[in-house]
Amino acid sequence: MSRLLGIDREAVRAAAAGVRRGEELDDDAAAEVFARGAWTGLVEPGDRVAGALVTAYGAAAALDATRTGALPALPEVAAATDRWAPRLEAQLALRAFRNAAHLGARLVLPGDADWPDRLGDLGHHTPIALWCLGAPERLTAVQRSIALVGARASSGYGERLATEASAGLADRGFAIVSGAAYGIDGVAHRAALASGGTTIAVLAGGLDRFYPAGHVQLLTRIAREGAVVAELPPGFAPTRWRFLQRNRVIAALAQATVVIEAGARSGSLNTAAHAGSIGRPVGAAPGSVFSATSAGCHRLLREFGAVCVRDAADMAELVTGPGEQVPLEGLHLDRAGDPTEQRVLDALTGRPRPVVEIARGSGLSVADALGALGMLQLTGAARETTGGWARGRA
Amino acid sequence: MSRLLGIDREAVRAAAAGVRRGEELDDDAAAEVFARGAWTGLVEPGDRVAGALVTAYGAAAALDATRTGALPALPEVAAATDRWAPRLEAQLALRAFRNAAHLGARLVLPGDADWPDRLGDLGHHTPIALWCLGAPERLTAVQRSIALVGARASSGYGERLATEASAGLADRGFAIVSGAAYGIDGVAHRAALASGGTTIAVLAGGLDRFYPAGHVQLLTRIAREGAVVAELPPGFAPTRWRFLQRNRVIAALAQATVVIEAGARSGSLNTAAHAGSIGRPVGAAPGSVFSATSAGCHRLLREFGAVCVRDAADMAELVTGPGEQVPLEGLHLDRAGDPTEQRVLDALTGRPRPVVEIARGSGLSVADALGALGMLQLTGAARETTGGWARGRA
Repeated sequence: MSRLLGIDREAVRAAAAGVRRGEELDDDAAAEVFARGAWTGLVEPGDRVAGALVTAYGAAAALDATRTGALPALPEVAAATDRWAPRLEAQLALRAFRNAAHLGARLVLPGDADWPDRLGDLGHHTPIALWCLGAPERLTAVQRSIALVGARASSGYGERLATEASAGLADRGFAIVSGAAYGIDGVAHRAALASGGTTIAVLAGGLDRFYPAGHVQLLTRIAREGAVVAELPPGFAPTRWRFLQRNRVIAALAQATVVIEAGARSGSLNTAAHAGSIGRPVGAAPGSVFSATSAGCHRLLREFGAVCVRDAADMAELVTGPGEQVPLEGLHLDRAGDPTEQRVLDALTGRPRPVVEIARGSGLSVADALGALGMLQLTGAARETTGGWARGRA
Repeated sequence: MSRLLGIDREAVRAAAAGVRRGEELDDDAAAEVFARGAWTGLVEPGDRVAGALVTAYGAAAALDATRTGALPALPEVAAATDRWAPRLEAQLALRAFRNAAHLGARLVLPGDADWPDRLGDLGHHTPIALWCLGAPERLTAVQRSIALVGARASSGYGERLATEASAGLADRGFAIVSGAAYGIDGVAHRAALASGGTTIAVLAGGLDRFYPAGHVQLLTRIAREGAVVAELPPGFAPTRWRFLQRNRVIAALAQATVVIEAGARSGSLNTAAHAGSIGRPVGAAPGSVFSATSAGCHRLLREFGAVCVRDAADMAELVTGPGEQVPLEGLHLDRAGDPTEQRVLDALTGRPRPVVEIARGSGLSVADALGALGMLQLTGAARETTGGWARGRA
């Protein structure tokens, strides 16, 4: 075991043990835990070079090589180590582990039973690890999950829809993934909890920074009954950049992303964009064309090929198999019924008339009119009297 | 000139002249007018065999051959002549011409300068002729036109949208085609008239049966300022079958069909289906998922690949060239701006800090942070002071 960031073996084991309680860690396992945790604070989320190096060398060896300057002499790598240099400090990493242990957080790693394998679709942008509050095995619930996201400044319409959708999806066994923001996100988390479903909140900052402030209680409840995860370690504030990167984690955790309500430039469109970029289905709920909070959804429907979703059943269908796209002619057949019978029915009145008049009125031969009248008589739609045929009482 | 339906030459010329005022008709032209008008009452709208025979033989010869039994001995033709037989009467045709002349209607024929060539996309289902009230040259306005259709039981939302859309399209030089029904159709016609645009109503029955009763005044105004057309001659009532066939004429007249509001089984979905079946663009307006009057529009968006249209500009775009479908990643780039500058901006506060702190906060090298700070200084987003860098006042 190398001296990671120059820290001695015992300190590495102690740091790792604090975020992997109930586990026996040998030196290698402790080094892996420590190195991955250190990487989450060393680089900004989604750092492609870090992802590639960790994949190629392993987290501990890559961290060591970064510190000792033993990395390949490539311009991209040199640029990366330059941008990492200001944070390449043992104290910064140790402090993150101490804070995480104090919070009772766990560091979940790729390869763990609880690790959501779906994150791997992000390629070199896959999170190096996730800090988690709440029973980490709940993360496996994302195997059947939908991200419900939307406007912070939501309307009553969007909140009603988010509530019904989240509850309906929870009833169908879906976990609800969202970002804990005000508005749609919060409503989606709450409705999932109220329905006894699993819900997972993904933060843009560290687990010690429950954000927004007004959702501290909600996040506390999610941590207790679901899970709250963060890519950055404790001590890191949410920033605009980190919100955008956080959105990729929401999109990658869930099987599909649904935007319930969104302004024309809402951050939830970014989540939809991430979902689309890794081939995940994207749904958007329609709304009033006069409502600014539906403008983003309509952009998704119109410009980006999102699927129009009206309720939980539609959203579940994004995942369980799309309803086949029926050609428009389908509707035509669907509507018209049997043309001959319809035409005879149109020609019938309450007053009985001879069949030749019915034939003339419907533009049919007497034989065809009689055939259709027979069928209509069976269903009660036509009746025969001494004076001829009339509309039935059915 | 054969004796059409056994009527003599003078009677044919008189009948034709009554619906082609201001024209000198020779015997052949009169026979063509009379025969096509007779066909419109002999068969139900959209009769494929009639359409094929008229195309193959010419209207007059086909009519003559039908009367004399000189048609090819094909099962389909035999079935057709059987169904036409009850209406194969000279008096029926003559009465239609008399009524039409009395109304001041004109019979517009394929090949006329006023004939909307676009109807030919219906193939053998093309109307054999159109009865028209209003200056027939207004039919040429459909060269740039959109059909606005929708629920009879419309909501205030749908009516507002129909009004704004119709007026906006009229302002852009589009004629508005619709079916004169209560609800969305009527609103669309009225808003087009109010905007000084051209509007065309297509009836399911004859021109002497303005329908619905509550729209007699509206239809009178449309006949005066736009045009009212019917495929069936005067004397024929609208029936359910004829409404469905009428919808194909609406769809074929217009360059695109837009459903503003529709229940899940609304007749306007049938118009959309006809438009789709002849390759015309179909738009559907979104609305509340809780509104029954938007359910049909959402079906179109979800199941039938209709384009989500929010306003007149979107509807015009159906025709003038669709906005290119942008991959979802486009949104991502659209949102994120320059990543380096964004990360530096995130790290800046009101209190000046040394560049190395800014670099650490943003996860960038000192050199990259300085570069970004320079750019941000230019836009006023960052400022340099003796204590370091701070957020700008811009």
